[in-house]
Amino acid sequence: MYRIPILRMGRTLLVTIQIDMEDQTAMALQNDLAEQIVKTGARGVLIDISALEIVDSFVGRMLAGISSIGKILDATTVVVGMQPAVAITLVELGLSLDGVKTALNVSKGMALLEAAAQGDSFVT
Amino acid sequence: MYRIPILRMGRTLLVTIQIDMEDQTAMALQNDLAEQIVKTGARGVLIDISALEIVDSFVGRMLAGISSIGKILDATTVVVGMQPAVAITLVELGLSLDGVKTALNVSKGMALLEAAAQGDSFVT
Repeated sequence: MYRIPILRMGRTLLVTIQIDMEDQTAMALQNDLAEQIVKTGARGVLIDISALEIVDSFVGRMLAGISSIGKILDATTVVVGMQPAVAITLVELGLSLDGVKTALNVSKGMALLEAAAQGDSFVT
Repeated sequence: MYRIPILRMGRTLLVTIQIDMEDQTAMALQNDLAEQIVKTGARGVLIDISALEIVDSFVGRMLAGISSIGKILDATTVVVGMQPAVAITLVELGLSLDGVKTALNVSKGMALLEAAAQGDSFVT
């Protein structure tokens, strides 16, 4: 089975989804990310989907799932690089990705994660 | 044809190679990277190959090619995440990747690129 690699950059995990995922790959990614968040103490997860031209309801739910799991494990998830057609399809599918943070590109996503981390610094 | 996405993070371009590349994909990556370096003024290119279990001589030469092109365009290329078996194969193939900078993981690669950029600051 094809596994999507997870890159660690400081306290952020970076995932680039490059090809249409089979369900098994999507499930594995969810599990691997949860494991890596706990193992590395990451506070942010950045998922780049700029290469995806189609996002079906399964992948949409998977993205929402990762975001929810991340939240429980105290990590913020940001999905970046969504193509306009993908955004349109998601809404047509009735998936508004509630609770999933998005940003136009990786740089903006990183800025969002840094802002979220700084908001935390008062608490920790 | 499958195209590998190039992520821009500040002045660094990040590429994650996730599946075995066909020759056409490898050529396209080389061209895309050269274009992006010029377009974005990037000073560093980070190529993660942790997902690759096999690197043949074509891919080996492509990595060396990207590094050489980058150098001409004033960008440092670092290849990160090479699996031990890949390193062994490359040497057995007689490809020692001369001129290609390597680092164990993305964090170390980023540190290498930052050090290279700071070395430049005396010149600019």
